[in-house]
Amino acid sequence: MTFPAPLTGVVPPVCTPLTPEREVDVDSLVRLVDHLVDAGVHGLFVLGSSSEAAYLTDRQRRLVVETAVARVAGRLPVLAGVIDMTTPRVLDQVRSVTGAGADAVVATAPFYTTTHPAEIARHFRLIAAGSPVPVVAYDIPVAVHTGLDADLVLDLAAEGVLAGLKDSSGDLAGFRAVVTGARTRQDITGFSALTGSELLVDTALALGADGAVPGLANVDPAGYVRLYDLCRAGDMERARAEQERLCALFRMVGVGASDGRMGGSSSALGAFKAALRLRGVIACEATAEPQVPLSPGEAERVGKYLAAAGLL
Amino acid sequence: MTFPAPLTGVVPPVCTPLTPEREVDVDSLVRLVDHLVDAGVHGLFVLGSSSEAAYLTDRQRRLVVETAVARVAGRLPVLAGVIDMTTPRVLDQVRSVTGAGADAVVATAPFYTTTHPAEIARHFRLIAAGSPVPVVAYDIPVAVHTGLDADLVLDLAAEGVLAGLKDSSGDLAGFRAVVTGARTRQDITGFSALTGSELLVDTALALGADGAVPGLANVDPAGYVRLYDLCRAGDMERARAEQERLCALFRMVGVGASDGRMGGSSSALGAFKAALRLRGVIACEATAEPQVPLSPGEAERVGKYLAAAGLL
Amino acid sequence: MTFPAPLTGVVPPVCTPLTPEREVDVDSLVRLVDHLVDAGVHGLFVLGSSSEAAYLTDRQRRLVVETAVARVAGRLPVLAGVIDMTTPRVLDQVRSVTGAGADAVVATAPFYTTTHPAEIARHFRLIAAGSPVPVVAYDIPVAVHTGLDADLVLDLAAEGVLAGLKDSSGDLAGFRAVVTGARTRQDITGFSALTGSELLVDTALALGADGAVPGLANVDPAGYVRLYDLCRAGDMERARAEQERLCALFRMVGVGASDGRMGGSSSALGAFKAALRLRGVIACEATAEPQVPLSPGEAERVGKYLAAAGLL
Amino acid sequence: MTFPAPLTGVVPPVCTPLTPEREVDVDSLVRLVDHLVDAGVHGLFVLGSSSEAAYLTDRQRRLVVETAVARVAGRLPVLAGVIDMTTPRVLDQVRSVTGAGADAVVATAPFYTTTHPAEIARHFRLIAAGSPVPVVAYDIPVAVHTGLDADLVLDLAAEGVLAGLKDSSGDLAGFRAVVTGARTRQDITGFSALTGSELLVDTALALGADGAVPGLANVDPAGYVRLYDLCRAGDMERARAEQERLCALFRMVGVGASDGRMGGSSSALGAFKAALRLRGVIACEATAEPQVPLSPGEAERVGKYLAAAGLL
Repeated sequence: MTFPAPLTGVVPPVCTPLTPEREVDVDSLVRLVDHLVDAGVHGLFVLGSSSEAAYLTDRQRRLVVETAVARVAGRLPVLAGVIDMTTPRVLDQVRSVTGAGADAVVATAPFYTTTHPAEIARHFRLIAAGSPVPVVAYDIPVAVHTGLDADLVLDLAAEGVLAGLKDSSGDLAGFRAVVTGARTRQDITGFSALTGSELLVDTALALGADGAVPGLANVDPAGYVRLYDLCRAGDMERARAEQERLCALFRMVGVGASDGRMGGSSSALGAFKAALRLRGVIACEATAEPQVPLSPGEAERVGKYLAAAGLL
Repeated sequence: MTFPAPLTGVVPPVCTPLTPEREVDVDSLVRLVDHLVDAGVHGLFVLGSSSEAAYLTDRQRRLVVETAVARVAGRLPVLAGVIDMTTPRVLDQVRSVTGAGADAVVATAPFYTTTHPAEIARHFRLIAAGSPVPVVAYDIPVAVHTGLDADLVLDLAAEGVLAGLKDSSGDLAGFRAVVTGARTRQDITGFSALTGSELLVDTALALGADGAVPGLANVDPAGYVRLYDLCRAGDMERARAEQERLCALFRMVGVGASDGRMGGSSSALGAFKAALRLRGVIACEATAEPQVPLSPGEAERVGKYLAAAGLL
Repeated sequence: MTFPAPLTGVVPPVCTPLTPEREVDVDSLVRLVDHLVDAGVHGLFVLGSSSEAAYLTDRQRRLVVETAVARVAGRLPVLAGVIDMTTPRVLDQVRSVTGAGADAVVATAPFYTTTHPAEIARHFRLIAAGSPVPVVAYDIPVAVHTGLDADLVLDLAAEGVLAGLKDSSGDLAGFRAVVTGARTRQDITGFSALTGSELLVDTALALGADGAVPGLANVDPAGYVRLYDLCRAGDMERARAEQERLCALFRMVGVGASDGRMGGSSSALGAFKAALRLRGVIACEATAEPQVPLSPGEAERVGKYLAAAGLL
Repeated sequence: MTFPAPLTGVVPPVCTPLTPEREVDVDSLVRLVDHLVDAGVHGLFVLGSSSEAAYLTDRQRRLVVETAVARVAGRLPVLAGVIDMTTPRVLDQVRSVTGAGADAVVATAPFYTTTHPAEIARHFRLIAAGSPVPVVAYDIPVAVHTGLDADLVLDLAAEGVLAGLKDSSGDLAGFRAVVTGARTRQDITGFSALTGSELLVDTALALGADGAVPGLANVDPAGYVRLYDLCRAGDMERARAEQERLCALFRMVGVGASDGRMGGSSSALGAFKAALRLRGVIACEATAEPQVPLSPGEAERVGKYLAAAGLL
């Protein structure tokens, strides 16, 4: 499908269900896509951080895109992450995911290597030049250890290099500069500013964001769609209540990390997958290696969060 | 060839010469291999940070290993980096580089994703289980934003998971803990502790390191071999003088970064490649995208460093 | 005066005007206090980061508190920073500022030394035990390199140790956890959650904050009071427009830092003071040593921001 | 006494013994000074990080300097830390410690506030202009979150601003640049480059350092003097053995931190003080607030390290 300009609404970063042997569980992925589409989301983002893109082999990545694209069948735009270290490797990922049918690609700043604003600009320009579909920038300093400056993003938007931004910077003031700039600069049109936060969707929309890409929307897509609709309707009081319900639900991400036995990624992705299994969407909560699995007791505590949020 | 236990001596992280079109320049790479082997180095490390591994596509990476292995023809061990984000992707790299003939693989902690000591241990254990050749850990927090704890490295050595460590942590005290532990612990044998520093080779060897992996050895391999031999002979005074000559030469890495026009990687790798071109070893000093190239004036300043070090 | 529970509204962190010889300019400070009080602010915070507390001697600090307290004369609460490294030194500051009449003290986590959550809790408990007035926690990781965990803040609020939080963490999601917790936990009453952001006052108030402590309110107190009133009246559209005007004005903080000649503190505090001089409030824009002064051209560019915001 | 140019040898950063009520224990401090002087150290550094300077009130700081200066009585130089955030506050500290008899002052880069190389240079120039005694720079990024660039240090040495450097950067390569520069630059004389490391004294001396300021020298001053003498005599093999014994002893700093109950400072300073009590030098192992005390079991484990090092 044609990528909307701008893309708006709730665009979940789709989890990647795995079998106990850590292969992509295609049947579960199809069910997860249905679960999200049926809840009314406005797009899907595969191969993002919540998708464990960093853990999937190239073969697995391609299978994920093919599966999602086939199931969505053009009803919604499918964005695909092209997570790799530098321009030449990202361009290989672009070829792969667009060959598999992605409607847009989502790329970070270079990582592993040290980088520089001039190199980041060069990186996105070359990706856009080599991509048959629109490019969305992914600002995720917790992963790549570099932030994207608001003015740089806006300049690249004005050049036609970037079609949007997924902001996982944690810096809402910086994101606001992009949102306001994209609205007020005459040389920018159709740019999509999306927050990656689970916890600030109402505030991000209030200050002008186009949509949200919350990992927790895997678990409760209907909640985020409801939140989006309340915000668009200007009912900020009920929006805040819905957001606060989702904030409480999000605390599930800490079930595994509290005793120092595993890292935050193992705990958060393990919790999302346990929740999806408990809700009957996916078959198995395995996360990719070398993540540490949740214990049965930890998975049970995820269930309590679901129950408290009215989801079980 | 059989990987030595322990590997000792000077093991340059081999630069990857590129054509102006950013393809691997095989002829120049062959000349560079000869330049290093002829100078008496004790091993080669391809696909490390100085090799621009983060910038090379999988196809290019494989070509680099094949070329180096073929040219070395068993005279020296060839170690290959398997730089990727997490275990499943690293294992794909292991298959590729060992298929191309590498004698050992060099792997970092997971990156891009947040990680945890338990996950790092799991990562190395799974890599060792899946690798037909020895595994050397690569401690490079500037790239992966996690350090390797000395006790973790030693425990994995004792388990037979790790055959060595390339230490680019910048933390000589932590490296000393590994060196001393590897010498004194009864449950560890044949472990190779290698410093990745250009500037502290004499001191690292004095405290017991087995060897060095200095990027600058591309430019002056004979200097580092001489330094290694002086240290082994116990002639610390002449060793220090040689080391200080190399420290002065190393300042070339700043030629491009002084005015804030590019990042440190562009400047350092650009300087190494300019030096190799000026010394007649490689044909072209291009670095991979999105690095910013040195200006002609900056390349000229590299020549002054070479001249001051007696290399032109 | 009795400290309100909770404190609400706009509480500017008051700049400290200096003479060209870097002594406290008492006359200018009095005019600045009048400028703020006349604009309708709801409290004053002296000896915060925007006050250059880190640069003032103990004698100067005391003079600042005495001057502000005397001029305010009980019309508004005066909070005073007690910025020092650890508990015993902070307690000395508490004695000094409360002796000079402060109605509450504002304390950070320990800094310079490495610290730990257990030590931070102990720190605030001892400060509260030793302070005759309420204690507000100051979360400012950019200065102290430690953040305050939301649950820790809430538990200390429930214990009666903390009367409020000034949040300069840049992490609005974490601040939201404090705001929501303070509202919903039964064991907490009268707690004041204040954002330290200049750029997100509307969103912070929308999610439930009690007030704001924006450095830029020195320059445009009437603007922030207007913004606060619009938010409280539920007129989010006009609030957003007012906030965006203030966001544009805030860009003045970069006038000195753009060419790398000085640090961000020199530039931001220099700009605030230049603006106050241009608006006729203070006599001299000197900042404390070792900050680098703005050039005349940079100060002139501050004037352009004022003009664009309708303040000249 | 006249401050030596350069200062050489072992210069312990003297712990500050406290009573159970957290007052300076003058008797214990006098015994500690004797313990160090009798072991043959070459100078004393009071009010450094190991002295808990960050935790001492101004009154306590002055008492420490007075006590040490009186007891040393000119036999050795006494350096005093002037640890505070910015220039005006540091100058107040300079007045205090030189009034109490310090022979040199030791100052860090500005902290709490963000800073910049131009501001750091200005800071040291103003301190030197205001100090009646020589100024030694203290490079301690773990505390102040800024490093001192080698070229900046050398330029300030050439200007006569800095008489020396205490390097606690953990970056031995950067320290080497200072050491080599101070030896080879014609415009620098009498500059003293001192390592703050406990673990790399032999290597620092081998590359040309003038001396060492190891916190662990409180516990085993004779060991560090012996190590210094072996290095100066060129007996690198026995020096390495002595250094490795001290490295093993240094592991005591982790006794309290292993289970996550306290921070690194509480654990390390608690261990040093427990060791001094166990060796009969000081009366009480209390550390200043808000540090968490060692448990009796943890203090007992300190004794095992002492026994293993032959010190009990």
